[in-house]
Amino acid sequence: MAIAPLSNINGSNPGLLRLLSKSNPSLPSISLPHKPMRFKVAAMSQSKSHWASINEDLVTHLKHSIPIRPPLVVFEPMHHLTFAAPETTAPALCIAACELVGGRREEAMAAASALHLIHAAYYAHEHLPLTDRARPKPKINHAFGPNIELLTGDGLVQFGFELLARSNDLTAQDNSDKILRVITEIARAAGPQGVIDGQYCNFLYTQSNWKDSSQVEMIKRVSEKKEGELHACAAACGAIVGGGSEEEIEKLRKYGLYVGMTKGMLYGIGRNYEKCLVKEEVDKLRTLALNELRDFNNGVELAAISSLVEAELCNA
Amino acid sequence: MAIAPLSNINGSNPGLLRLLSKSNPSLPSISLPHKPMRFKVAAMSQSKSHWASINEDLVTHLKHSIPIRPPLVVFEPMHHLTFAAPETTAPALCIAACELVGGRREEAMAAASALHLIHAAYYAHEHLPLTDRARPKPKINHAFGPNIELLTGDGLVQFGFELLARSNDLTAQDNSDKILRVITEIARAAGPQGVIDGQYCNFLYTQSNWKDSSQVEMIKRVSEKKEGELHACAAACGAIVGGGSEEEIEKLRKYGLYVGMTKGMLYGIGRNYEKCLVKEEVDKLRTLALNELRDFNNGVELAAISSLVEAELCNA
Repeated sequence: MAIAPLSNINGSNPGLLRLLSKSNPSLPSISLPHKPMRFKVAAMSQSKSHWASINEDLVTHLKHSIPIRPPLVVFEPMHHLTFAAPETTAPALCIAACELVGGRREEAMAAASALHLIHAAYYAHEHLPLTDRARPKPKINHAFGPNIELLTGDGLVQFGFELLARSNDLTAQDNSDKILRVITEIARAAGPQGVIDGQYCNFLYTQSNWKDSSQVEMIKRVSEKKEGELHACAAACGAIVGGGSEEEIEKLRKYGLYVGMTKGMLYGIGRNYEKCLVKEEVDKLRTLALNELRDFNNGVELAAISSLVEAELCNA
Repeated sequence: MAIAPLSNINGSNPGLLRLLSKSNPSLPSISLPHKPMRFKVAAMSQSKSHWASINEDLVTHLKHSIPIRPPLVVFEPMHHLTFAAPETTAPALCIAACELVGGRREEAMAAASALHLIHAAYYAHEHLPLTDRARPKPKINHAFGPNIELLTGDGLVQFGFELLARSNDLTAQDNSDKILRVITEIARAAGPQGVIDGQYCNFLYTQSNWKDSSQVEMIKRVSEKKEGELHACAAACGAIVGGGSEEEIEKLRKYGLYVGMTKGMLYGIGRNYEKCLVKEEVDKLRTLALNELRDFNNGVELAAISSLVEAELCNA
């Protein structure tokens, strides 16, 4: 990785960025804030096509990995729930982080797929009709009954780990140490001290009465454990499989954490609250996030990855 | 592994074995069928203490791995659900297979723990009150609400994979290739083409009207995918981490498959049907299972592992 300062990273144009950003706020959007306007527009367009290309490759890989084949009773709901979940930026961030440290896209594809499959499984489980849960608003369309959606979620998680563990057999090089490290990272982030802890807290908070003064802390805590941990893990995993240094891995882990927290605060649990409540926190997180990218200077890859958090500010 | 024929393996005494077997039929029980009676009793006692010692070590390892610690909202239900699930013989079989091929018990402990945690998670998920499910009979005691039990199940699966992936850091030797292979084995067996497929079939069958002639096939199919795949995987994983040859791994995989199928046919889905319906199939499976052990001759370890399927016949 080449080292260079990322100057004037806060000088973006929110209006222009909002105009160019995708309609789905959970998708990676675009910006390149530290260049004159004509370069900005070109770079934004480049970042946008960079994310689009990452997402396209990821979808192709997932479709290839989960074809609709016998037993249909198993693979039809698997295929459906894999693509029914709203997109999350974590898998794409994993690939972008891999490319930022000089790795090849295909090196991060298994980790990114596993992250997406776990996200899809948890989304299905979060929307099961359980007796002690408030019904989700808006209601989602259930293509299958609750029992099948529960089982399919369990199956998606296992399939994600299988894809990841098997990925070592697909390359000539032995990457077993890296893959084991990635499995540990993902299992920990998606587990009881990461996303599951966030889901517990989310559930407890939704059953409590929160005053304005503590709402922000609650939103921040849930966002840190849910979207924050998953994005932190995604970026770190991308850097690991891409061959990044320990310093790069930790910088990208922190970048992912801040990106994920802004996602959660704006579109996760935070979506139920007034944006003005969290704006100050989101501003702080954005600055912290961009600071972590200061020592990277890989042109297109840097512009793309930094656009994730730039876009969040614009949409706030 | 030393090679020797296992002679007269079918000559056991069901009455005596039943007398000595544990009251819980899901626990590994004991027998050594091919010796005069006084040796039989001594060997049975040895096998019994061998299984007891394996289970004791496994419980100690799990208690150490999942202490009740903050955040309590996460670790209390995790600890509870880990030990609330009825014991399955799969994790103990994993350890016994490792010892049979000459491995050390601690080499199989992480794989056995992951198998138990996935079993505990699926047990919790299978007993969630979903609207399209028949209520389980007998009803189980739910210490926590459905939402917490669902989330905790998800957490247990992740924690199992984390334990397994991290186990490479605990030894001086680099076993990353073996551990990745075990992760692939477990994820596949517990996934959409293994246990999850069995659960789907079980669910579909419980909603259908089955005539006597097809009941046995249905019981056999569900038992093969649920208990069969899990025990096959457990035995294969034990042989892998214990350093067994490919031939030994495949023999133990088949042995595990037949053992698991007898478990399912007698105590899984088959428990709802008359034992006489499945007795003929169970007899066949027992013979097939013991045939797979013919080339092993490791004394106590062989007696212990073969007692699993001997006991099934006695309890039939």
